[in-house]
Amino acid sequence: MNTDLGHWVGIDIGGTKTLTIITDSKGRSQLKKHMATSNSDDPETFVNQLMSEIESGLSDCGGNWLTVLGMGIGVPGITDRVGMVKDAPSLGWHQVTIAPLIRRYFDGPLYIDNDVNVAALGEQWQGAAMGKNHFFMVTVGTGIGSAIVINKQLYRGFSGSAGEIGYFAVNDPTDWTKEDLRKFGRFENETSGSTIGNRAREVLQKDSRESVVRELVNGNIEALEAKHVLEAAVLGDLIAWEILETPIRYMAMGIANAISLLNPEIVIIGGGVADSGELYVNAIRERVERYTPIKTDIVNARLGNMAGAMGAIAGVRQMIAGGGPRQI
Amino acid sequence: MNTDLGHWVGIDIGGTKTLTIITDSKGRSQLKKHMATSNSDDPETFVNQLMSEIESGLSDCGGNWLTVLGMGIGVPGITDRVGMVKDAPSLGWHQVTIAPLIRRYFDGPLYIDNDVNVAALGEQWQGAAMGKNHFFMVTVGTGIGSAIVINKQLYRGFSGSAGEIGYFAVNDPTDWTKEDLRKFGRFENETSGSTIGNRAREVLQKDSRESVVRELVNGNIEALEAKHVLEAAVLGDLIAWEILETPIRYMAMGIANAISLLNPEIVIIGGGVADSGELYVNAIRERVERYTPIKTDIVNARLGNMAGAMGAIAGVRQMIAGGGPRQI
Repeated sequence: MNTDLGHWVGIDIGGTKTLTIITDSKGRSQLKKHMATSNSDDPETFVNQLMSEIESGLSDCGGNWLTVLGMGIGVPGITDRVGMVKDAPSLGWHQVTIAPLIRRYFDGPLYIDNDVNVAALGEQWQGAAMGKNHFFMVTVGTGIGSAIVINKQLYRGFSGSAGEIGYFAVNDPTDWTKEDLRKFGRFENETSGSTIGNRAREVLQKDSRESVVRELVNGNIEALEAKHVLEAAVLGDLIAWEILETPIRYMAMGIANAISLLNPEIVIIGGGVADSGELYVNAIRERVERYTPIKTDIVNARLGNMAGAMGAIAGVRQMIAGGGPRQI
Repeated sequence: MNTDLGHWVGIDIGGTKTLTIITDSKGRSQLKKHMATSNSDDPETFVNQLMSEIESGLSDCGGNWLTVLGMGIGVPGITDRVGMVKDAPSLGWHQVTIAPLIRRYFDGPLYIDNDVNVAALGEQWQGAAMGKNHFFMVTVGTGIGSAIVINKQLYRGFSGSAGEIGYFAVNDPTDWTKEDLRKFGRFENETSGSTIGNRAREVLQKDSRESVVRELVNGNIEALEAKHVLEAAVLGDLIAWEILETPIRYMAMGIANAISLLNPEIVIIGGGVADSGELYVNAIRERVERYTPIKTDIVNARLGNMAGAMGAIAGVRQMIAGGGPRQI
């Protein structure tokens, strides 16, 4: 096979949407496909639907399964070295081995990793972390995730749990129990996009002051999400800023602490909340400068919501090149 | 020269005491020397005194400067790659190049590094971190320091500031200013041995309740140090526990956060406060288990106050072997 004619397939499976990118052999994007993450409670049906989408996408690009040089997949959860998804709560997956389901369609190089790890690989390949040796990536979306790159390599930790900043203790934990910990991460619970959306709904149901936030959903408070709060904050809406103050302060503390510990060259903020422009990253940057004296650039992810799918391709390419994270 | 007959020299320069260890060629300790860190405001006089001590120590071991295979030095501050001490506040050293002063006596392999980094190398060589790929070391003494070892190598960060956990934000920083940051690290200020000593003096000057702490210094409150508080806590003294509650809680938060981020195989607690037995590490361990669900062994440094000097030797040996941190 002439690899110049080949394709790379990158997939970013999210809790609600799955994004697939097909590139040419050089990694230039040829096709993007969004599909709803439906039927994820039945992994076999989900994978069959996804593979069928990819098959038609490959055909649109003049390719087929045999022209695929490699496939990378990002999953919102903990994966192991042989492609088993140990735990992906938003998909309802627990101990799901998806590799064999994919092998029915494609038996070339296959790389499966956590979604934040692949987003970091994407930013390293074609985004804000190009040429950086050490960087730290945080994703702020439905949940909170982070990835650590040291000496240009993803650092996974002793048991694969490095970067679990959702568990950061940033407020007084005097009354915490082990039981609480099993339920959620305290830091995630203060800072995630879901939290911002939930608080907005709570506040606007009680607070009768005028607010742009309410207008953005035409008064349908139940439809409120974090992105509406951020959009209203850009317009100077006071209630939006009140809602954001605590999540931003805690996130800045968490990022400042990661900087004091890791001294990265750059911190990249990705995920849905960061997608909404410069407001969030600017507010974080201003606070981090007061919380740690160690100087670090803090920037938005450059690839936006494509970081994960592009990074999944970067991962499988690294795997083939031998310097890569792991073979499945 | 037959290297079997050679010696290694390891030096741990502390704010108040300097410990020198001379070992045989295999790294077996032959001689330990403590000296007061006096005249540190005049680096030349200080180094001359230190070298004279080492010269007599070498003679006691049947050696001399020519039998020294290598010398390693740990310094309580920030060092650079050519042996310049950028900043060591407890010694009053700022931009001090000590290597040339040492070169008047010894021109073999010389390694100079931060004291916490060398303590980590010591524990890796002959202590609690033997055989561990990834570990985290915290020292709790006059100040707070930490060292990160990843893939068996010290991780220094982008600009050499990795491990500066003294700056951790662990309580609400709403009113912090950049000015405050320059003065001290908030986390260090809540958790260090100096803080424990200061609080003990404050509390016992006001509080008239009976306390073992007071007895341990024969009523001389001004002589109180952290070690007396820890000693009294072992005996179940209530005031001692009241003094320790906040420093221990914050330290546990800091360590839990480092675990959530780094997922090390083991956390080692060293420094003067940790020297005082198992009480401190046990109290930290109990809390950390409630602050992060990621399982990690937390243990005291096995080499105690020898970790730094032994690690300085480990550092120069690694440097010679070529896998080591840096050449001077």
